[in-house]
Amino acid sequence: MAHKVERLKINYKTLEDFKRFKQYGQQELSMLEDLEANMIENDSESPFYGIYFGDKLVARMSLYQIQAKFDRYFDPPQDYLELWKLEVIPDYQGKGYGRTLVDFAKSFGLPVKTNGRVNSSDFWATMGFTPVTYEVERDRGENPFVWYPAGVKEQVH
Amino acid sequence: MAHKVERLKINYKTLEDFKRFKQYGQQELSMLEDLEANMIENDSESPFYGIYFGDKLVARMSLYQIQAKFDRYFDPPQDYLELWKLEVIPDYQGKGYGRTLVDFAKSFGLPVKTNGRVNSSDFWATMGFTPVTYEVERDRGENPFVWYPAGVKEQVH
Repeated sequence: MAHKVERLKINYKTLEDFKRFKQYGQQELSMLEDLEANMIENDSESPFYGIYFGDKLVARMSLYQIQAKFDRYFDPPQDYLELWKLEVIPDYQGKGYGRTLVDFAKSFGLPVKTNGRVNSSDFWATMGFTPVTYEVERDRGENPFVWYPAGVKEQVH
Repeated sequence: MAHKVERLKINYKTLEDFKRFKQYGQQELSMLEDLEANMIENDSESPFYGIYFGDKLVARMSLYQIQAKFDRYFDPPQDYLELWKLEVIPDYQGKGYGRTLVDFAKSFGLPVKTNGRVNSSDFWATMGFTPVTYEVERDRGENPFVWYPAGVKEQVH
């Protein structure tokens, strides 16, 4: 069965669903507070994309488009996507949900950059990502992996 | 017994010690390659600080000084420290090594910012850190915790 990726709306159900994910933090708490204080509308667009199994959210990630003028990873410099918080809840791991989300991120045709978590390098290699040449001023404690669409290569400094 | 914090030199022993830490990634591999290729000298300064138990490195962190012109967290805007890769190896956890490193970071008198890992909020609260007001354009998927020295407060946007 093909997994369908959906852009997640900010509402009470989504925020309740988010509690099942380990990377629940200040961002999710802030979304909840803004919703409760009517500072954002119910069903606002979010930077999150996810996959439902029935009505249960089982995988998610967030994507942010970074402007070309801030691009320090790709040649030629261009708009690219930062991928964060890729996570599949435990009972649903190993079924291709993570790959489906990453393929979705790649489908925009823009370069993609992520900060790989501990022991994730095999996963990112399987997804077609490569580690960047580490640069202390840019990367500090990050572990960046990038995906190059055709015609794009690493930015050399 | 007081734990002594040392600035770590880049050499083969340090890099061998680093393999015991979970957050071993592109940065550590790059340091090893640079050392092997004689691109950096043996015993070069590193951004890492650590604590030894006997001759065993049991805790580490890295610190980067960020220039005031890039400060988006503190008021007044100023140079501050970014703290990364705080980690105590498992058999030595719960003995105050983490606190000693964080206290050392605070001892420079500059504000400190870190990206808190999953379920680390209680630890950071105990260390006197507070979560920032989340801002999507600045923080994306990060979970920033900051420490304010006297006279410094949150930068409001």
